[in-house]
Amino acid sequence: MLLIAFEELRDRVGRVLSGLGMTDGRAALAARLIAETDRDGVVTHGIARLPRFVEMVRRGRIDVAAEPEREIAAGALERWTGNAGPGNLNAFAMTERALSLAREYGVGAVALRDTTHWQRGGTYGWQAAEAGCALLAWTNTMPNLPPWGATSAALGNNPLVIAIPRPAGAVVLDMAMSQFSYGALAKYRQRGEDLPVPGGFDAAGALTRDPGAIERTQRALPVGFWKGSGLAFVLDLLGAMLAGGKATHQIETDPLAEVGMSQVFLAVDASALASAAEMERVAEGCIASLHAAQPLVQGQPPRYPGEGTLRARERSLREGVRVEETVWAAFTALEA
Amino acid sequence: MLLIAFEELRDRVGRVLSGLGMTDGRAALAARLIAETDRDGVVTHGIARLPRFVEMVRRGRIDVAAEPEREIAAGALERWTGNAGPGNLNAFAMTERALSLAREYGVGAVALRDTTHWQRGGTYGWQAAEAGCALLAWTNTMPNLPPWGATSAALGNNPLVIAIPRPAGAVVLDMAMSQFSYGALAKYRQRGEDLPVPGGFDAAGALTRDPGAIERTQRALPVGFWKGSGLAFVLDLLGAMLAGGKATHQIETDPLAEVGMSQVFLAVDASALASAAEMERVAEGCIASLHAAQPLVQGQPPRYPGEGTLRARERSLREGVRVEETVWAAFTALEA
Repeated sequence: MLLIAFEELRDRVGRVLSGLGMTDGRAALAARLIAETDRDGVVTHGIARLPRFVEMVRRGRIDVAAEPEREIAAGALERWTGNAGPGNLNAFAMTERALSLAREYGVGAVALRDTTHWQRGGTYGWQAAEAGCALLAWTNTMPNLPPWGATSAALGNNPLVIAIPRPAGAVVLDMAMSQFSYGALAKYRQRGEDLPVPGGFDAAGALTRDPGAIERTQRALPVGFWKGSGLAFVLDLLGAMLAGGKATHQIETDPLAEVGMSQVFLAVDASALASAAEMERVAEGCIASLHAAQPLVQGQPPRYPGEGTLRARERSLREGVRVEETVWAAFTALEA
Repeated sequence: MLLIAFEELRDRVGRVLSGLGMTDGRAALAARLIAETDRDGVVTHGIARLPRFVEMVRRGRIDVAAEPEREIAAGALERWTGNAGPGNLNAFAMTERALSLAREYGVGAVALRDTTHWQRGGTYGWQAAEAGCALLAWTNTMPNLPPWGATSAALGNNPLVIAIPRPAGAVVLDMAMSQFSYGALAKYRQRGEDLPVPGGFDAAGALTRDPGAIERTQRALPVGFWKGSGLAFVLDLLGAMLAGGKATHQIETDPLAEVGMSQVFLAVDASALASAAEMERVAEGCIASLHAAQPLVQGQPPRYPGEGTLRARERSLREGVRVEETVWAAFTALEA
């Protein structure tokens, strides 16, 4: 494990992005969002994804110069196209737009079509919460998850973000609709570990904790069996309908060609209803109650979504951002 | 199983509600919502819940005369109090209000505090979708679910509704954050059946499909393990914060005293972005893709949320609404 100073990581990512033809301001923003992802400990969605991003730019799948454009304005509700621009810049801009609508109307919703992978969904949750707003946002993806009752992938894992502002540190849920990503399954297999809970089906059709067995069947489990299957379906349908964009079944099943996603960003100006002190009081009460639950393992109370993030962030800023050697090697190859 | 004509069921429920002191118009609406729940096949949340409702009215926990009142108006975002009125009438009114805001602003959000059990959440999804709007709505509940990593209940099962308008029949997801309700566990146990998937933990702390074992430990499983646990937490916190109402930890853990819930109703006027023909085209595409997935059992394609509802509805209107003998006996006792 390497330790890289946050500023160094951010600036080096920025230079790689500039080298792709991104203008300086956009490269700096995109680089910050990527470096912050690693800083916050979400190592799967930070610089680990940069080689794929660069390859998609080289193949013309992502247009580094493209900016989102508004297609329909209907008061606090808007439809935009992402013009196949960088997914994190598009999502950041749409979150800003939803925040702006929320400040004007109390609530604001933006549907975005033709965008690309938004990378870490939680990024936009933190962005909104730090601006005093709640955010509900989701994206569809290529088909990568069998619906409940089927054996072939016909749903995306469609990550959902729900963020709640709180003066002492936001609460941010960032969850995909599959119980484990294929990346996570591979990590467990490489470590020779079973999954902590069933994560899919084996060749005999039985629920299994064996990651390799699920990789072989490609039958990963939706969260909550039929429930997450239904939730993934409605997020895809609603996003595609509002955005006028592609639904999962229209997105290529190839990580290097996964473009044209539909996303929704829905911001609520919580500060119009609650003071900062009220927000803090409500959050403290919920968190205290969660922490007071009888823990399964003594000394390890349940955690709230985002609870680990501030700790990871502080540690990264103090000690350096943790980067795996193989991820770093792949990154430095992009600098050449 | 009894078969009761829909109109008879509705009118008899209405007379029971009138007998509690509900005015005629309100009794008729509440009775319609209850009878429609049984009509649509959601037998756990229709007249089966009426004895509890009547008892809560008698104990003064629910005020049949109370109407919701607006506390804060902030453009397309509002906060209301339910004044401990009937939960289904409050939720129906708040959905109407969110729809009205959505028609004016494109999107509308209403947070409601101090309400009571909304009965069938899907009711409000159908209500919105039939008005051409999408709805995201949720409620918190009393503590009835251990968070992931804990053995005592500190979360509600906090049902979430997502509804999408569609000319040929709405798509309506209505899911609680527990994998199985305690009512469902009891039904499986009474039939001597194992659960189809793990639903909680046994006394040894192992995941189990034995419903009785879970009833004994009271360790029901959140959907998706840590994921549903996190989702239940954020829905509770966000609802309580926006509504200025109770969070789960402040609600009494007693089905006959479960009042003061916080709810959110968020409507999007999809018709501002998509024509009815476009909505139908997007929905048809998603549904066709789902139905084309390789089924686990030949001839049984995966279903979309709400797919069974229209069939159940048509059958009930043709043959009569199915009511279990014990449920009917408990209902007729209320008529005496």
